Amino acid sequence: MLPDPVRERVGREWLEAQQRGCSIAEISHRGCDFLDLAEACDTRMRKLLGLGNNKQLLFMQGGATTQFTLVPMNFGQGGYLVNGHWSQKAYNIAIEINPGTVLFGNAQADGCFLPVEQSARRLRYLHLASNETIHGVQWPARLPAWLTDFNTPLIIDMSSDIACRVTDFRQFGLAYAGAQKNLGIAGLTVVIADRELLLQARSDLPVMLQYRKFAAHDSMYNTPPTFAWYVTDLVLQWLIQQGGIAVVEQANRRKAAAVYSVIDASGFYSNDVHPEWRSIMNPVFRCATPELDALFVQEAIGEGLQGLKGHRVVGGLRASLYNAMPMASVTVLAEFMQEFARRHG
Amino acid sequence: MLPDPVRERVGREWLEAQQRGCSIAEISHRGCDFLDLAEACDTRMRKLLGLGNNKQLLFMQGGATTQFTLVPMNFGQGGYLVNGHWSQKAYNIAIEINPGTVLFGNAQADGCFLPVEQSARRLRYLHLASNETIHGVQWPARLPAWLTDFNTPLIIDMSSDIACRVTDFRQFGLAYAGAQKNLGIAGLTVVIADRELLLQARSDLPVMLQYRKFAAHDSMYNTPPTFAWYVTDLVLQWLIQQGGIAVVEQANRRKAAAVYSVIDASGFYSNDVHPEWRSIMNPVFRCATPELDALFVQEAIGEGLQGLKGHRVVGGLRASLYNAMPMASVTVLAEFMQEFARRHG
Repeated sequence: MLPDPVRERVGREWLEAQQRGCSIAEISHRGCDFLDLAEACDTRMRKLLGLGNNKQLLFMQGGATTQFTLVPMNFGQGGYLVNGHWSQKAYNIAIEINPGTVLFGNAQADGCFLPVEQSARRLRYLHLASNETIHGVQWPARLPAWLTDFNTPLIIDMSSDIACRVTDFRQFGLAYAGAQKNLGIAGLTVVIADRELLLQARSDLPVMLQYRKFAAHDSMYNTPPTFAWYVTDLVLQWLIQQGGIAVVEQANRRKAAAVYSVIDASGFYSNDVHPEWRSIMNPVFRCATPELDALFVQEAIGEGLQGLKGHRVVGGLRASLYNAMPMASVTVLAEFMQEFARRHG
Repeated sequence: MLPDPVRERVGREWLEAQQRGCSIAEISHRGCDFLDLAEACDTRMRKLLGLGNNKQLLFMQGGATTQFTLVPMNFGQGGYLVNGHWSQKAYNIAIEINPGTVLFGNAQADGCFLPVEQSARRLRYLHLASNETIHGVQWPARLPAWLTDFNTPLIIDMSSDIACRVTDFRQFGLAYAGAQKNLGIAGLTVVIADRELLLQARSDLPVMLQYRKFAAHDSMYNTPPTFAWYVTDLVLQWLIQQGGIAVVEQANRRKAAAVYSVIDASGFYSNDVHPEWRSIMNPVFRCATPELDALFVQEAIGEGLQGLKGHRVVGGLRASLYNAMPMASVTVLAEFMQEFARRHG
């Protein structure tokens, strides 16, 4: 989902470009216009996310699943903190590439982890997924000391929550995010990496699989997805216009609170996630029976509320509250939830 | 470059979708709307390019350079026919992956190849680049018997000339093309592969590097670049509306003939490519001196004619006549070329 003003601006700029006979999707990535855009985008993202000069930004293709592949190929054997579908998927790919990959699972239903063992000290990196969309579980923005104290580089998949809250990127050796949730449209992946960590990446892989090659060529070793890159730049501009990440975070917390407060006050909906681990992007909840969950989805569609069905691997219900979702839509959802609970509670 | 009607339709449909609060770039690839689009696109491409049921279409990311990597990873040691920059680049990547990769170079300035040796029979595939944009050299649509007689699967990079002329895809085991020249915008790569050949692809690579995984999941193992896919579908519709590839080929031949006839009649411009190998997409030419070439580029820009500078590795001049380029623009170019020759000849 794109913010309304971004969607409108893409439409407006497309029409303007049409008059000139060349849209933004058609300009060469080697031309001045695109190089200017790429440079401005780099500057904007650094400012918005508070990134230091030790960070290298990469704009790649292939989504998070490609990063699941490139991380273990480039950095070797790591440890994977698995607390849901996506972190599990990352581990499944990594273990095929490096058989010595270590899994740290969470054994508790509250979304917390068992403390990572001391063996983590011997690993090249620890990988985690910042937000598990299917389970509604999100790591705290400030990671717990038991994790950061290892001084092992952390590599984090932020596809579903990048730019949703103030985040200190110094915690991470490498962070990546498919753009389609909070930063634009499908087809672009943003990577934020410590330059020093990049120097430890392998340089004997096929060139298209080397982070170092992308870094050395400013993400233009080959033709990048120019249109998706442009949309991401517009989203960054919108986020800056909102007042920056701190303001966006406040809005996101208000949206999440609106949903969680209905769940907790209802005595009708349930959510098992420990309060400190509840996702502000994807609150999950369920009614007393799967039949009521199905009825909820059906009636919600009648009210114009889409996409509330929980993922098939867990069932139940799920709201997605990405940055572009306005508070007004969340209010409609919260009111519908209350009304549905009254009628069926 | 997109055809004018496609650019207009993207703008129109974007505005329509804006009214509904959701553009085509935002819909889920798992939703009915996108699945319908993907299916229609598959059908259209099969019809337009005359593909049999034995062909599998894949829609991937990463451009031709990623295919340069995936081909040798998935199919092992091949032979590479090198007659220009792009086929050389494909070879350079392949030899790093499979040290036994065999190079078949062209020793003649006319763009022809020395006959490929008998050793080709023992190779898993032969790779070639259909059109060398920098050198203005294009393989004939019907490949010579000395190449096809080996019965070795041919793998071809068609990034710069797919859908430019009637082509019998039964000649190829696998054909691939970045969409941005003739089929849409950057960020999507189309792959047309024999199902039987795909069965010989490796299944022990990381999943995101396996052709078989993309095939098994209808190109949706992970989130595909939905907007770029949509644009490609619009371009296919436009090609069909033109009357199909045979009609498009006639137009392309007229455009190329307009440029080559000025070159050949001028006594001012030169082009060294053997007539049978001359590219109908990228005619290259040069004036008597590099200084005149530079002046040509400069004066052309003054006339609104962009992108005529030859690639830095060869110098000279180059016209790009991709499908979307209208005859009217080529006529302007041809007239400018004549006029420039008159003034400086």
